[in-house]
Amino acid sequence: MGCVSFLTDYGLGDGFVAACHGVLLRHAPDVRIIDISHLVPAGDVRRGSVVLAQTVGHLPPAVHLAVVDPGVGTSRRALVVSAPRGVLVGPDNGLLPPAADVLGGVRAAVALAVPDGVPATFHGRDVFAPAAAAVAAGRDPAALGEQVDPGGLVRLPPPVARLVVDADPAAAAAAEAGVNAAAAAVAVEAEAEVVTVDTYGNVQVAADAALLASAGMRPGHLLRVAVGASVTTAVFGVTFASVAPDELVVYVDSAGLVALAVNRGSAARRLAVTAGDLLRLSAGRPAPS
Amino acid sequence: MGCVSFLTDYGLGDGFVAACHGVLLRHAPDVRIIDISHLVPAGDVRRGSVVLAQTVGHLPPAVHLAVVDPGVGTSRRALVVSAPRGVLVGPDNGLLPPAADVLGGVRAAVALAVPDGVPATFHGRDVFAPAAAAVAAGRDPAALGEQVDPGGLVRLPPPVARLVVDADPAAAAAAEAGVNAAAAAVAVEAEAEVVTVDTYGNVQVAADAALLASAGMRPGHLLRVAVGASVTTAVFGVTFASVAPDELVVYVDSAGLVALAVNRGSAARRLAVTAGDLLRLSAGRPAPS
Amino acid sequence: MGCVSFLTDYGLGDGFVAACHGVLLRHAPDVRIIDISHLVPAGDVRRGSVVLAQTVGHLPPAVHLAVVDPGVGTSRRALVVSAPRGVLVGPDNGLLPPAADVLGGVRAAVALAVPDGVPATFHGRDVFAPAAAAVAAGRDPAALGEQVDPGGLVRLPPPVARLVVDADPAAAAAAEAGVNAAAAAVAVEAEAEVVTVDTYGNVQVAADAALLASAGMRPGHLLRVAVGASVTTAVFGVTFASVAPDELVVYVDSAGLVALAVNRGSAARRLAVTAGDLLRLSAGRPAPS
Repeated sequence: MGCVSFLTDYGLGDGFVAACHGVLLRHAPDVRIIDISHLVPAGDVRRGSVVLAQTVGHLPPAVHLAVVDPGVGTSRRALVVSAPRGVLVGPDNGLLPPAADVLGGVRAAVALAVPDGVPATFHGRDVFAPAAAAVAAGRDPAALGEQVDPGGLVRLPPPVARLVVDADPAAAAAAEAGVNAAAAAVAVEAEAEVVTVDTYGNVQVAADAALLASAGMRPGHLLRVAVGASVTTAVFGVTFASVAPDELVVYVDSAGLVALAVNRGSAARRLAVTAGDLLRLSAGRPAPS
Repeated sequence: MGCVSFLTDYGLGDGFVAACHGVLLRHAPDVRIIDISHLVPAGDVRRGSVVLAQTVGHLPPAVHLAVVDPGVGTSRRALVVSAPRGVLVGPDNGLLPPAADVLGGVRAAVALAVPDGVPATFHGRDVFAPAAAAVAAGRDPAALGEQVDPGGLVRLPPPVARLVVDADPAAAAAAEAGVNAAAAAVAVEAEAEVVTVDTYGNVQVAADAALLASAGMRPGHLLRVAVGASVTTAVFGVTFASVAPDELVVYVDSAGLVALAVNRGSAARRLAVTAGDLLRLSAGRPAPS
Repeated sequence: MGCVSFLTDYGLGDGFVAACHGVLLRHAPDVRIIDISHLVPAGDVRRGSVVLAQTVGHLPPAVHLAVVDPGVGTSRRALVVSAPRGVLVGPDNGLLPPAADVLGGVRAAVALAVPDGVPATFHGRDVFAPAAAAVAAGRDPAALGEQVDPGGLVRLPPPVARLVVDADPAAAAAAEAGVNAAAAAVAVEAEAEVVTVDTYGNVQVAADAALLASAGMRPGHLLRVAVGASVTTAVFGVTFASVAPDELVVYVDSAGLVALAVNRGSAARRLAVTAGDLLRLSAGRPAPS
């Protein structure tokens, strides 16, 4: 019995998800289906790719069917991507590669032919689900379409995550002049793009703990958190309740990335950020404890 | 192992759906459940009937349990409806017949007795789910209640879909006078009721491609789209990306009906329409390309 | 094949629920999963406990995995609670005991050890789901952790449900003076806390039919409904359509508790109440029929 995971932007109000379940079960009656999410915002390929990539590693061996596909019915390719620890099925628009990387990297890919007479707006049901069911039922992905160059798959640009010199003029000048090594170290910031905001309003950024450490930020310390011209502070803790209710905490989240939360509140609202925004984190020098 | 599909207006925030799953599994432990949707707006029988009818054809052979039931606990009948390609269980309020038609038409129907002592507000759990489980487990629907006349089931009025003479006075006059056949042909509009609006804001109307063709509308042409006194134009394309982002497109959707979408946007918002509203489509004469 | 029910405040937009499904299926491949709800408001332990307690009784024998856990990663205990008719797994914060009571009462409980190196923010995936899978796969809960005193589990205070003397000065005075037994009886009110508001806006309170009867309220009668200084009336009916559309009805709901609904509307909006608010119900003396 195979397993198929399923992620889309179809929402839960229509019968679209069920129609795909139906197609899967008609082609592979014993398949086990795990719905990852169907609430990806309409057409938000990046958000879909993030949710998919951060989930597949926790699932049993599976065919991962993912459809966030604003280009449905156009010439964008329909893919089956094979990785060492799973197979992915979906459009060639950047949705699949991050998850394929989690599963060991793209080893091979085929482009599915779109059968004549198929409606141009529901390839999830009519193209991708039948292919996923075929693979789950044991068919060789290579038999489903034409081989394509794994290096030629569409990939989204990686999110920003880098060390930068603090924009604070005095510190930056000291760092650049190199007159004071300590001041220079202190002046380094981690600049990181918001990868995603979860249901609680927790803000995950593209940095990991190592990046923070290389900029002198240590667990237990107070950090400086800047978004544009707006600056606040947060304890570098381990969980939501590392700080008092309504306070901001920086922690390493369950996906291994740096995140910010407000205990019993929403960090996304507090910081007024959304996916794609840039945060700058640094060791908080003038730390009012 | 039988299959039960399940559609309600119960929402996903309470335990109502799970309680019904529990009843199904207690009565039929090996049944496969496919949730169609539980986000039908509260009491919106017409919306429920549309989602159900447009989904059942894509599912494996199944018992379709559907409960949108504002009259629960009153004298409205509780039905098991048999069709050539499936069985439907739910209230006699118009919810089931369109899906039964998709499955080959109502062949027989029985009215379920409501057991004494059952709460008057949760027949999904206490009346319908046990009946669906019984049929899924192999029981003959005829044994579950009293035969009722298939012709006597409550049916909602069908949505409007017709050809009309254009309200434009000059064109209408020409058409009525019959002085100019070409003008008359041009003056014909397809008037169609909005059947449903999906999660993307795509607007599905009760017309099919043949109705548009009979009013002179051809794929690739620019169409005139009128809602009340408000008029706009749209390309008759094949998919969302047949037009530039933020532009309106008319297409034949995956259910075989005419629909309107805004590429990467919401046609329902653009046109300010909702289910039940009337649209008028016609071949766009003064077509600014 | 075991059965696991699953309730959280994870929402449906992220991959959190699926990651837990994945863990369950990796540890117990044949387990049947019933999702109760994942839309418990973030951190709302009381709401989670109500939905869980009102659902488990309708499910097959199961391990009930429930995670609404604002204290994740702190010293709050992680529990496996055994009851005569089921096992519950989740945090020691009041979430589980009401459901355990429905399943026959807490017979034994163990505290799970949190493995080293586990992220501090996703015990649903890393601590609770593996424990639930182990029990579903046949492991003895007692083998999973250290026995703890069942009497020492955190419990939320029970909701208010009591008879009180009417706040109406004249009636209260009569009742207190005891000069008029009939007046005194009439002056008794049932004061009850709102337990929960469902997806329809139906308002469930902590009273049962017996409490209403002991305050002289009978089915079919008109009741007085007070919230703070605001007073209205409602028929004591049996279902939503016991009253005309847009009218308020009091009834005994499918969980056996007194509830208020507006036929085809929202009682929560009409009464402007939410969970935790107090309602006062009494036999309606000056009853304009």
